[in-house]
Amino acid sequence: MYRFSSVYLNPKGSPIRALYKHLSEPGMISFAGGYPDPQLFDVEGLGAASERAFANSKACLEYGATEGTPRLKEAIVQLMHERDVHTTPENIIVTTGSQQAFDLVLRVLVEKGDSVFVEQPTYSTNIQAVQAHQAQVSAVPVTAEGMDVQALERMLASASAQGEIPKLLYTIPNFSNPSGATLTVERRIRLLQLAVQYQFVLVEDDPYGGLRFSGDAVPSLMALASQVPGAQDWVVHMSSLSKIVAPGLRVGWAVAPVEILKRCSVAKQSADVGSSPWVQGIAAEYLASGRLNTHLGHICAAYGAKCRALAHGLRQELGDAISFHEPSGGMFVWARLTGDISAAELLTHAIARGVMFVPGEGFQADGVDRFTLRLSFATPSLEEVAQGCRRLGEALTAARAARSPQALVA
Amino acid sequence: MYRFSSVYLNPKGSPIRALYKHLSEPGMISFAGGYPDPQLFDVEGLGAASERAFANSKACLEYGATEGTPRLKEAIVQLMHERDVHTTPENIIVTTGSQQAFDLVLRVLVEKGDSVFVEQPTYSTNIQAVQAHQAQVSAVPVTAEGMDVQALERMLASASAQGEIPKLLYTIPNFSNPSGATLTVERRIRLLQLAVQYQFVLVEDDPYGGLRFSGDAVPSLMALASQVPGAQDWVVHMSSLSKIVAPGLRVGWAVAPVEILKRCSVAKQSADVGSSPWVQGIAAEYLASGRLNTHLGHICAAYGAKCRALAHGLRQELGDAISFHEPSGGMFVWARLTGDISAAELLTHAIARGVMFVPGEGFQADGVDRFTLRLSFATPSLEEVAQGCRRLGEALTAARAARSPQALVA
Repeated sequence: MYRFSSVYLNPKGSPIRALYKHLSEPGMISFAGGYPDPQLFDVEGLGAASERAFANSKACLEYGATEGTPRLKEAIVQLMHERDVHTTPENIIVTTGSQQAFDLVLRVLVEKGDSVFVEQPTYSTNIQAVQAHQAQVSAVPVTAEGMDVQALERMLASASAQGEIPKLLYTIPNFSNPSGATLTVERRIRLLQLAVQYQFVLVEDDPYGGLRFSGDAVPSLMALASQVPGAQDWVVHMSSLSKIVAPGLRVGWAVAPVEILKRCSVAKQSADVGSSPWVQGIAAEYLASGRLNTHLGHICAAYGAKCRALAHGLRQELGDAISFHEPSGGMFVWARLTGDISAAELLTHAIARGVMFVPGEGFQADGVDRFTLRLSFATPSLEEVAQGCRRLGEALTAARAARSPQALVA
Repeated sequence: MYRFSSVYLNPKGSPIRALYKHLSEPGMISFAGGYPDPQLFDVEGLGAASERAFANSKACLEYGATEGTPRLKEAIVQLMHERDVHTTPENIIVTTGSQQAFDLVLRVLVEKGDSVFVEQPTYSTNIQAVQAHQAQVSAVPVTAEGMDVQALERMLASASAQGEIPKLLYTIPNFSNPSGATLTVERRIRLLQLAVQYQFVLVEDDPYGGLRFSGDAVPSLMALASQVPGAQDWVVHMSSLSKIVAPGLRVGWAVAPVEILKRCSVAKQSADVGSSPWVQGIAAEYLASGRLNTHLGHICAAYGAKCRALAHGLRQELGDAISFHEPSGGMFVWARLTGDISAAELLTHAIARGVMFVPGEGFQADGVDRFTLRLSFATPSLEEVAQGCRRLGEALTAARAARSPQALVA
């Protein structure tokens, strides 16, 4: 009866949302969502920041500037400076999570039929976001060292020959969701060179970079852009407080060239006028309090321990039946079942035994490997991680038994 | 150099934003923005609500449901009930201001080239929003009694003959921004019948309905829909706490049929994942506190006095040179200069004398009456309203003098 836009005729929600209903089952251990551990929130620091913010109640309660409050933009400039990105408030837009930053960039750049490149695998909701803008999505493979830049080079040469250069390429170079992979410096430099050569916008999504628990930090694409002639014109950097402070703030941002940024601001006017200046005030006070670096030390130690526990548990309980690379930070392990049981098949048995993960299908824009899955170690406790791995082992045994000839007869 | 979407090649910001730079000039009296008076905020009640919300800090800091927190949706059901709209949490999506609700409705319904009807004049940012979705905008004239439904009927008959029924019609039936007009019950009923007959979505934007300071309330389109067979399928009702509590909360919502609502929810996933559960918690606590109705009594009295002061001041200082209808609520007076001085011309002289308003051009999607202007009485004090009117009178005198033969010679 309704005449919906073709994109929304049969809308698919996120693959994680489809699992929500199981989250509340008693005793369920979830490796599914990419949710920060609520036990680790800096409640004291955020409560104090909230009180300080409301001391200037009018600034909290009035409309704020569409691009974000001056005070929070200054705090973000400082935070980016600590990350070796030297920028100004004029290059920053504050958004409702970095999700909105990506949506705004898509709005200003992409029209129906335009080409957009993403990684394979990549964050499921952003495949949806690109498809909602009616773009043609192409997927660049990812290896243990991040995006396969040689493969990208071949894809760009071919696209160029057909006059279909992508408007943008979306990448999560640090501890990617879902792959956990981090792009090497050499590949980053090459990627920047390709953006300049082919003139596409390189959208760097970096919510997890602050969550490194082993190895050395790799400079961001935006930090490296100063070393590649022309590259500073082509990088849009997005980040957020969701994973390092608290997702409930819904405070994200983009750092971008002014020509792109001012259009994002016009797009944000009609999208939502502006994000809440009240939570922006709280975020600014929290960043000004100087507590973030200490907090990051705590949570990186905790996530590192959980990651090692997950890797250990998977090896112990599933052995050769699963393969994966252990990440150096972030929240995710991307794994592959080596036998003939698919991730969806395993999930059915896993849920019955009180453990959840996300099958890899939703993270793949182009062709699907049904044996892949994403496991997040962020939310469960160390004990739950170990117990969850035991349950996964039992689920695999059960899945195999259900496949065996006896089971078919019985 | 950048290949922007055609919509953002030469983006126009809102006409109000173009005036921002003058807002901070010393002594400036602004009739420009539609900003609630910060002197009237219930700071005590909101501070207490903030403390109560953070007592459940995890609910504030974790991700919330994309459609909004259950507690706020329940509070909105109750608020809508007091407004004679009987709905359920399943029909509600919480948004970042009602601006985002409109953006989501546009996303799920409108594709490039689709037809959308708006009022003339209407809220400038929503003309931009419709144009950003590449729709064809048609404007339905507004009289002192709100949208001219007879004119709409002719437009629909003509559109139907050409097979171009609008996907939706956007209306602000109570104390419209900018016209100040309120649609009569008879016109509302006819409008609902037309929506059923021609099968278009009727988007009712009602941020100002709670701000009535004289006359009797008129039931909303959504409340009246139960009296018109089939109409309940076609009304999407949007509202917000921005004008009645505080814009800094950025808490708006839509009430809609489930088929539309569930698609808005999918669209919101990729737009921003969800609005901040922290401010949703504060809003829910504030609504639960029972302070809103008392607060509304205060602010309606204050806005009523300011509106009467503005009407009196305009009559006294500009006399026959300006015509307008005095509204019964809301924040806006829509006026027309009766001579040969345009609103933009008057504005130049007005700003030089320390008073601002918004010329009517930006509020008109189809043909422009350059002699119209919007004046908001919400923000200035009673004394500033009177003083602002005196300055407008002086500005008009100056504008006429600048046009006179002597001035041309000099």
